[in-house]
Amino acid sequence: MKKIALIMGSDSDLPVVEKAVAVLKELEIPYEAHVYSAHRTPDEAREFALNAEANGFGVIISVAGMAAHLGGVIAANTTLPVIGIPCKSSVLDGMDALLSTVMMPSGIPVATVAIGGGANAAILAAEILAVSDAELSKKLKAKRESDREKVLEKDKAVQEKLA
Amino acid sequence: MKKIALIMGSDSDLPVVEKAVAVLKELEIPYEAHVYSAHRTPDEAREFALNAEANGFGVIISVAGMAAHLGGVIAANTTLPVIGIPCKSSVLDGMDALLSTVMMPSGIPVATVAIGGGANAAILAAEILAVSDAELSKKLKAKRESDREKVLEKDKAVQEKLA
Amino acid sequence: MKKIALIMGSDSDLPVVEKAVAVLKELEIPYEAHVYSAHRTPDEAREFALNAEANGFGVIISVAGMAAHLGGVIAANTTLPVIGIPCKSSVLDGMDALLSTVMMPSGIPVATVAIGGGANAAILAAEILAVSDAELSKKLKAKRESDREKVLEKDKAVQEKLA
Amino acid sequence: MKKIALIMGSDSDLPVVEKAVAVLKELEIPYEAHVYSAHRTPDEAREFALNAEANGFGVIISVAGMAAHLGGVIAANTTLPVIGIPCKSSVLDGMDALLSTVMMPSGIPVATVAIGGGANAAILAAEILAVSDAELSKKLKAKRESDREKVLEKDKAVQEKLA
Amino acid sequence: MKKIALIMGSDSDLPVVEKAVAVLKELEIPYEAHVYSAHRTPDEAREFALNAEANGFGVIISVAGMAAHLGGVIAANTTLPVIGIPCKSSVLDGMDALLSTVMMPSGIPVATVAIGGGANAAILAAEILAVSDAELSKKLKAKRESDREKVLEKDKAVQEKLA
Amino acid sequence: MKKIALIMGSDSDLPVVEKAVAVLKELEIPYEAHVYSAHRTPDEAREFALNAEANGFGVIISVAGMAAHLGGVIAANTTLPVIGIPCKSSVLDGMDALLSTVMMPSGIPVATVAIGGGANAAILAAEILAVSDAELSKKLKAKRESDREKVLEKDKAVQEKLA
Amino acid sequence: MKKIALIMGSDSDLPVVEKAVAVLKELEIPYEAHVYSAHRTPDEAREFALNAEANGFGVIISVAGMAAHLGGVIAANTTLPVIGIPCKSSVLDGMDALLSTVMMPSGIPVATVAIGGGANAAILAAEILAVSDAELSKKLKAKRESDREKVLEKDKAVQEKLA
Amino acid sequence: MKKIALIMGSDSDLPVVEKAVAVLKELEIPYEAHVYSAHRTPDEAREFALNAEANGFGVIISVAGMAAHLGGVIAANTTLPVIGIPCKSSVLDGMDALLSTVMMPSGIPVATVAIGGGANAAILAAEILAVSDAELSKKLKAKRESDREKVLEKDKAVQEKLA
Repeated sequence: MKKIALIMGSDSDLPVVEKAVAVLKELEIPYEAHVYSAHRTPDEAREFALNAEANGFGVIISVAGMAAHLGGVIAANTTLPVIGIPCKSSVLDGMDALLSTVMMPSGIPVATVAIGGGANAAILAAEILAVSDAELSKKLKAKRESDREKVLEKDKAVQEKLA
Repeated sequence: MKKIALIMGSDSDLPVVEKAVAVLKELEIPYEAHVYSAHRTPDEAREFALNAEANGFGVIISVAGMAAHLGGVIAANTTLPVIGIPCKSSVLDGMDALLSTVMMPSGIPVATVAIGGGANAAILAAEILAVSDAELSKKLKAKRESDREKVLEKDKAVQEKLA
Repeated sequence: MKKIALIMGSDSDLPVVEKAVAVLKELEIPYEAHVYSAHRTPDEAREFALNAEANGFGVIISVAGMAAHLGGVIAANTTLPVIGIPCKSSVLDGMDALLSTVMMPSGIPVATVAIGGGANAAILAAEILAVSDAELSKKLKAKRESDREKVLEKDKAVQEKLA
Repeated sequence: MKKIALIMGSDSDLPVVEKAVAVLKELEIPYEAHVYSAHRTPDEAREFALNAEANGFGVIISVAGMAAHLGGVIAANTTLPVIGIPCKSSVLDGMDALLSTVMMPSGIPVATVAIGGGANAAILAAEILAVSDAELSKKLKAKRESDREKVLEKDKAVQEKLA
Repeated sequence: MKKIALIMGSDSDLPVVEKAVAVLKELEIPYEAHVYSAHRTPDEAREFALNAEANGFGVIISVAGMAAHLGGVIAANTTLPVIGIPCKSSVLDGMDALLSTVMMPSGIPVATVAIGGGANAAILAAEILAVSDAELSKKLKAKRESDREKVLEKDKAVQEKLA
Repeated sequence: MKKIALIMGSDSDLPVVEKAVAVLKELEIPYEAHVYSAHRTPDEAREFALNAEANGFGVIISVAGMAAHLGGVIAANTTLPVIGIPCKSSVLDGMDALLSTVMMPSGIPVATVAIGGGANAAILAAEILAVSDAELSKKLKAKRESDREKVLEKDKAVQEKLA
Repeated sequence: MKKIALIMGSDSDLPVVEKAVAVLKELEIPYEAHVYSAHRTPDEAREFALNAEANGFGVIISVAGMAAHLGGVIAANTTLPVIGIPCKSSVLDGMDALLSTVMMPSGIPVATVAIGGGANAAILAAEILAVSDAELSKKLKAKRESDREKVLEKDKAVQEKLA
Repeated sequence: MKKIALIMGSDSDLPVVEKAVAVLKELEIPYEAHVYSAHRTPDEAREFALNAEANGFGVIISVAGMAAHLGGVIAANTTLPVIGIPCKSSVLDGMDALLSTVMMPSGIPVATVAIGGGANAAILAAEILAVSDAELSKKLKAKRESDREKVLEKDKAVQEKLA
């Protein structure tokens, strides 16, 4: 199975990355995580992206806050699908990172998920691999069903509580 | 090759869809386009999503403005990757559609591209199929190179113009 | 008397729902509360809406945060009045939920109240039932008068405090 | 049948009001339209609201731009359901009117629809009257079905166009 | 000397009002403070404004959050200058109150100060009275000079600290 | 009678200033208009403010777009009431000018009116002078009544049109 | 004298660049202009930045819209001062480009000017070179004086017009 | 070597200034820090700017929140490069200060860095001085390399942690 790369711009983004890692482990998808800053280590970020396909990666998840260029830098150097997670920093609640990640110019898309959306980035990466992996597709459907059941249990609890 | 579905919430979104179709044609990827409103034809939108995988689709692109729920409605009914294009309507410049598309809750991602980003949605869909299609991956790399050359030609033109 | 339904997308919205429940109890209006996610339990949300009128409901209140599609999903499946309460989540202060709830396309309205406006959603639901229920209308007028008196008591307290 | 009142803050809001009037005519609901400014004719706005219930109105729709206080002024003087349509003015794309209309304090709700959402305000008003009017409820369901069919016709047209 | 009225929409706005009161006391300007809600006590707010000039007030300061209509309601019922202080509530950081206060339609101005700007509202009220009160004008100039000296003392402290 | 000063940061703000001038002429209030940029002619702006009181001005209206510092620069150099009109420029719809004008720090208020609110700035200036000018106060009340009548005429026209 | 580089992400930014070029010509500062996209020609943008200092450049101006990463990409590859001009594109009025340009993480600044601020970027570049170039400093002071005079001429014209 | 001036509008901005001072000390650049408010001490701010060049300063950093006019006031009185740091205050997360600082009109640029970007303002000031100071340029390159190494160490730590 192809691996998922998780590249974060700073280790302060670790809590968001860990939400993604939890999902990848649950789905038994191999991954590799790195701290590469688009601005402070541009060469490492570029090299990683240039070699990602050859190194067995199928999808790259980038995680960054503020003027979040990391997704764009990676996407500019690979044709693998790149998923961007905009992160909230100390001001503006992540709106800066969201616009910096999603408003990519024509030619180089970054598949953007919600601000801080670590779990959804991992699920999206899995959905991408599952397009050609029936086994993984089954696991995703099972996870959906399990999520659905959790909601219905909460429904029961709330009905009792508010009756 | 798996097909790409293009679902638009209204035929006023057609100009954005046509930018996506142009890219899919260029890359020779089969596609099918529909007008299904999340709100006015909820059953058709749901049915399409429930059957998309069985009907040979690999990726679904949703295109919608205002309170753009279409991507979410489709994603809630399939585990295929769903790409959302937020569209600008008569007010708010598409910010409403962007937030309605990208801020999905945990469990159900929608891969969001820029407001009005028809071309990028198609490229992203192609990148997703290309994860397991070396031929398509080559075409994407060739398109990148061709885009690069177009920029360099513009560079020459601008250098002359501003010299 | 027709019942009010309170549908929340997640049990994290419970504090907002409880503000609505308190008003419904005060006005002696029967209600039923559920946790149904537009995305994780789309079938349950849809079924509830499709059957709500037949099941004796007069108004449905939906409560959701982020890309708050719940009001739209319910409204798409019933012609009962649907009230939407946008909720604040961990980022963006509820602006995402407000726009996702209020900016509905032509044909399918969601009557939106303030971010976190649990009490007002319940009052609005009561006002709707009171259009054809003179008894309830009287209760609403009495509540208004009581609210007015509370403000005037605070006026006295503040006048003394700041004199 | 109870009447719908349409109160606009300025006759520049007429295009939005006319979208509401078209729906009310289609559904054969009696209505009355007025220009009353919350600020330039506060007494007329107040008097209208105070007497609306006695004068046979069931729902009041307010239509205003900028610091759109009209919905709040009316709602403060009646316990009828008040629907607010925020209007776009020369700047800020209606965001000012949206927040001024929807962010009502506890006790006095204004049921807010989309910026410029004239048709939806009328449909919502009809849905409110239909809670106790089975005939009107049928008309609303027929309108839904007709809207659905229009979308499906567009679907056919688009499929042909993009094939 | 004419009095300043301070009208707050809720006693939760008291901390902002107290900043204004402190300035008025410092400048020895008579004032009166009230809690009158534009929506829950519309008659009291209106009556106060209608009689304010006759009751010896020269300027009215309104203090309100969310869909802050209080300034507009007062201004609609008097030709005295009305100063509006938008207040931050639990969401949106006061942006809703700012737009609801400042974006008044032509004919009825509300002189808006910063979100939470209690002190500045009082200073502005004093500046207005001082247009025809040389004694008060002197006090304002002295306060300016004293503010200036406080900054210069801080300048010294900071220079030492950072040397 | 004291004069009103109208200071605009650029002659591109002239259309807004002319709306103010029309009101001042209608109310027969003497005025003087200048183009002084806070940034390109800081000394002239400062000198004007420092001498405004001695030169017979009672209120200063500043008119500026973008990072609209003009109101603040003037207010920093006088204790006369300063009214700020934020203007829309080529981007951001005047939100930049609004925040730059209204969010003044404690000590130096600028009485802010709506974006582009030329007429209201003049009315507010008149209300300020009218605090000690019974004649002008009468004119303002007459203008209010005339505005009210214009709305009521529009009400009649609209009632006929929509009947 | 060191040269100024003007790097634009797309030739659609040319009108903004031309405003900068006009200022550089006026101040007789040598410059070179290029179209290099951060995403479509990442290697060319990087190479330019890596060699800019050795190639005789003193300041680099980047010009880009949407998720404007160009300034960051250049700044990551040089320690020359980098000035960023955010550009308005078809939606969001340049707010996306502003946040993508200015909100740089610690370590790699981009000196950001106003949205579309071509002239100011050139003046800022000139001010930077003028820190060690007394001749250029004189020219900048002369330009300031000339700008001041232009404002004062407009002041005269406006005074006459509005008298 | 020319000195860097750090002018803050209030001593509440001290934490941001201290981040800048730490960088200047690390790079051994002489500096001077002041508290001068654009509004409460306009003369001191103006005098400082008018004399800064003669007093041996090469760059001025201004630090201010809310309607942050300080950068503009300083830039209006010098042709030295002025760097503006917008600061977050109690509301609006610094968006008011950002727009007040960056949206300067043509003729008077303020080089704006991120909200709260103390370190980057100092680095930018150093980059400006380094245009004509090879020694400082070397130090900046060494700092870049050291920043890069810190990221790579974090990369190792994260790889281990998430393996």
